Amino acid sequence: MLWDGWGDPLEQSDLPEKITALLSAALGTTDPVPRIDRDAVRLRPSRLTDEQLAALTDVVGPDHLSTADADRLLRAGGKSTPDLLARRDPGVQDAPDAVVSPGDEFEIAELLEVCARRSVAIVPFGGGTSVVGGLDPEPGAHSAVISLDMRRFDWINELDETSQIAEFGAGVTGPRAEVLLSQAGFSLGHFPQSFEYATLGGFAATRSSGQASAGHGRFDDMVTGIRMITPAGTLDLGRAPASAAGPDLRELVLGSEGVFGVITAVRVRVHPTPETVLHRAWAFDDFAAGAAALRAVAQTGTSPTVIRLSDEVETGINLATTDAIGDEQVTAGCLAVTTFEGPTAVAEAHAGLTAAALTAAGGRDLGEAPAKAWRAGRFSAPYLRDGLLSAGALVETLETATVWSNVDALKAAVTAALTESLGAPALVMCHISHIYPTGCSLYFTVVAGPDGAGDPAAQWGRAKDAATTAICDHGGTITHHHAVGADHRPWLTREVGQVGVRMLRAVKEALDPAGIMNPGALIP
Amino acid sequence: MLWDGWGDPLEQSDLPEKITALLSAALGTTDPVPRIDRDAVRLRPSRLTDEQLAALTDVVGPDHLSTADADRLLRAGGKSTPDLLARRDPGVQDAPDAVVSPGDEFEIAELLEVCARRSVAIVPFGGGTSVVGGLDPEPGAHSAVISLDMRRFDWINELDETSQIAEFGAGVTGPRAEVLLSQAGFSLGHFPQSFEYATLGGFAATRSSGQASAGHGRFDDMVTGIRMITPAGTLDLGRAPASAAGPDLRELVLGSEGVFGVITAVRVRVHPTPETVLHRAWAFDDFAAGAAALRAVAQTGTSPTVIRLSDEVETGINLATTDAIGDEQVTAGCLAVTTFEGPTAVAEAHAGLTAAALTAAGGRDLGEAPAKAWRAGRFSAPYLRDGLLSAGALVETLETATVWSNVDALKAAVTAALTESLGAPALVMCHISHIYPTGCSLYFTVVAGPDGAGDPAAQWGRAKDAATTAICDHGGTITHHHAVGADHRPWLTREVGQVGVRMLRAVKEALDPAGIMNPGALIP
Repeated sequence: MLWDGWGDPLEQSDLPEKITALLSAALGTTDPVPRIDRDAVRLRPSRLTDEQLAALTDVVGPDHLSTADADRLLRAGGKSTPDLLARRDPGVQDAPDAVVSPGDEFEIAELLEVCARRSVAIVPFGGGTSVVGGLDPEPGAHSAVISLDMRRFDWINELDETSQIAEFGAGVTGPRAEVLLSQAGFSLGHFPQSFEYATLGGFAATRSSGQASAGHGRFDDMVTGIRMITPAGTLDLGRAPASAAGPDLRELVLGSEGVFGVITAVRVRVHPTPETVLHRAWAFDDFAAGAAALRAVAQTGTSPTVIRLSDEVETGINLATTDAIGDEQVTAGCLAVTTFEGPTAVAEAHAGLTAAALTAAGGRDLGEAPAKAWRAGRFSAPYLRDGLLSAGALVETLETATVWSNVDALKAAVTAALTESLGAPALVMCHISHIYPTGCSLYFTVVAGPDGAGDPAAQWGRAKDAATTAICDHGGTITHHHAVGADHRPWLTREVGQVGVRMLRAVKEALDPAGIMNPGALIP
Repeated sequence: MLWDGWGDPLEQSDLPEKITALLSAALGTTDPVPRIDRDAVRLRPSRLTDEQLAALTDVVGPDHLSTADADRLLRAGGKSTPDLLARRDPGVQDAPDAVVSPGDEFEIAELLEVCARRSVAIVPFGGGTSVVGGLDPEPGAHSAVISLDMRRFDWINELDETSQIAEFGAGVTGPRAEVLLSQAGFSLGHFPQSFEYATLGGFAATRSSGQASAGHGRFDDMVTGIRMITPAGTLDLGRAPASAAGPDLRELVLGSEGVFGVITAVRVRVHPTPETVLHRAWAFDDFAAGAAALRAVAQTGTSPTVIRLSDEVETGINLATTDAIGDEQVTAGCLAVTTFEGPTAVAEAHAGLTAAALTAAGGRDLGEAPAKAWRAGRFSAPYLRDGLLSAGALVETLETATVWSNVDALKAAVTAALTESLGAPALVMCHISHIYPTGCSLYFTVVAGPDGAGDPAAQWGRAKDAATTAICDHGGTITHHHAVGADHRPWLTREVGQVGVRMLRAVKEALDPAGIMNPGALIP
């Protein structure tokens, strides 16, 4: 992964001219923020003492601990726009004091003990794709902070083909899970935009949701079992597909973002590689009509694998089909894409029922092409952001979810909050990325010009505050699939209340009495 | 509800002669355990002091507090066989020291404070249908214990027809919820065997699962939001259909069995009254073939609303169709019943896909009749138990769940454990009541003759211990939908581990520092 941008350096390219043209038409003048040379980055030196380093090295061996700037820089944060802007800072940048890569659970348990005794904080690190500050190198009250890199947990332990459950190490990335499974004719089917880099442990720690979650479920739905090493001992949860044996403690580990311990393994539901994949795109007169149609699909249970709806602005610039951004508007009104996977008869039946529901709700069939174009470009948007940031446009996303009856009001409130707080011309786009019988997610993409103050991170901070306030005031959740991290942490009390926060603190105190686990994330 | 048996006294009847005949053929001589007269019951006197009673009465008013034996007796326990045998005990019976029925959340909060200050324990009481000792009048370390009856929380607060969410008071029973919803053309669709008496708060507190959970989900899946009054304050959780805002604290309230606080309201997913309900029954050569067929249905996603499979023994005595018990075996091999609900086109599509999957797996189509007969008698089995107990047969059920690859081994282990430990001729029957892509539940019904020691409760205790040991040793969950209560409490450490129990204790300590909430249940 690129240290100061998204993804594979070979996939990075200059911004296409048609997008530059779109940008200046929409936003006016922009204010380029140059990337800096990696060798020019000035990193705060490691604060670890020789004794601390020796104790950590004793656990993992010298090959699996590094205080080199190059290694620390790669774990300095996640991939939010504030993270990427921080990487362009010519001043002193922050980073963890060391990167430690344990090889097994025993080493993790020892690391936790070594760190608790020496007051060293730990930030578990998977693919490094957090967009909410979940990887901030925050030592809290401690003397230093290490990045605990899970890359060596890259194994598949077991595939139970009968039960369709696979157990993976937490450091397995999305593509590696698919490769390991495809050899046996199976697939996981979890495709968030971070898919290419993020890990299964990270998906679990953040309650990830993917593009195919309508069909295959959110990652938290896929997890049948989970292992976590905490300072207080080992948790191994999930004895059955479902249970009434008290509160479901798996649901406390899911979304725990490293604050209780280190997730080491997940057992996940898998499914046979689909015999058939069908694509179909639809147009609706406007967002309200499209949202009503998606609601009908969710509430009737017609079972699409993917279903997404772009609003008028997003459809207008062809955001759903990245290659066509800057071209003339391809789809009138609002574009929806659907896919169906499974045995042929089942996929066809679901496609037929869904088509009937969408047609009845006023949808116009656009055929396969726009849905296939979406699928082809679905992982490329983050690359575009790097070019846009360089060109001086502020680009970021945020997301929420709410019940169907509140979708229009929440969308309007968040859009207004963003537009009014950015202090510059802005495009605010939205799509529904996930549907449920009772509601849906709303995913916003913001592209704004500079506000003239020369501090795009502060500009975004203001907009994010305004948007999150609007979300809390208008009945949304502070995050549908990006997690809490450092960025949403101040808002968690509004989400779960003071008693809810007290519950989380009680669990934290029981599992991590020294408070060394990711002290900057999640719990306010 | 009858004080010493199941359900409506008018529905109670003598055991049909054909069943008595079946009984003596299968079990030999039995040893009748007579019911006793209600007026002959000797109840331990209330331990509450005048000061305690006055303080409680101050909160709810004199009309909503009772120390009368008749009221205490009705909340003396649940409806497990040990509970019903205890009601036939001519010695002194235990019961809560008072029954208190608060009218709103403020009164509950006050009651919690009054009780915490005076060291009085509280057992929240919904429909009284626990079969795991969840209502045992256990004071723990306290001076007395009251039953907090939620019957006055019998309202529907809101029905959001667009989002298909309804908010109910926790004291609403299953039938009342259906009546309240049907007026607006909606249904909840949660039909556990306790449906006629159990409450929505109880469903939530125990992670109930119903006969239609294949289609409509377990009750924990239906809950979009929940309110609980704890000694530490009020929890109101669930802002969106799905969220990544940290651990899902709803999942700590679901299954909390009154040990953290009192659930006062639930927001639940509802659906339009089905346009169509289709029924179809199937026969399979044996249980293994039937289980493989159900697995194909779950893993292909053909979406039946109900799907159940009886094993050979259960099919042999026609247990799935209560009216025909004692008749000649109706279905050869193993009987499966399916139903499909929804808009006609959707129900028919799901029925077609399911029929194709079951046929491909060797199922023989039996038409509608056996499935309709199951549906007609589906709530009558508990009545039968009362008659069987009177006739001297020991009758009880227990249940578990496991992954598909482990179904045969677990079923064999539990069957062997029961058969070997009962010390008497026994019928051990089993059905799959709930399916998931990764596994299923196993529901056992046991009918046994007396072991000669004259203590059927001790006989069952031995069998239950043996069965639960077998479940733990062979990879099952200690309960799939009956909950933990007092009966499974000693086994919870085997389910979630010592660290898991520590998490529960930490939450308990934070929310109920005085330890007054249902001290006999759940947490070991």
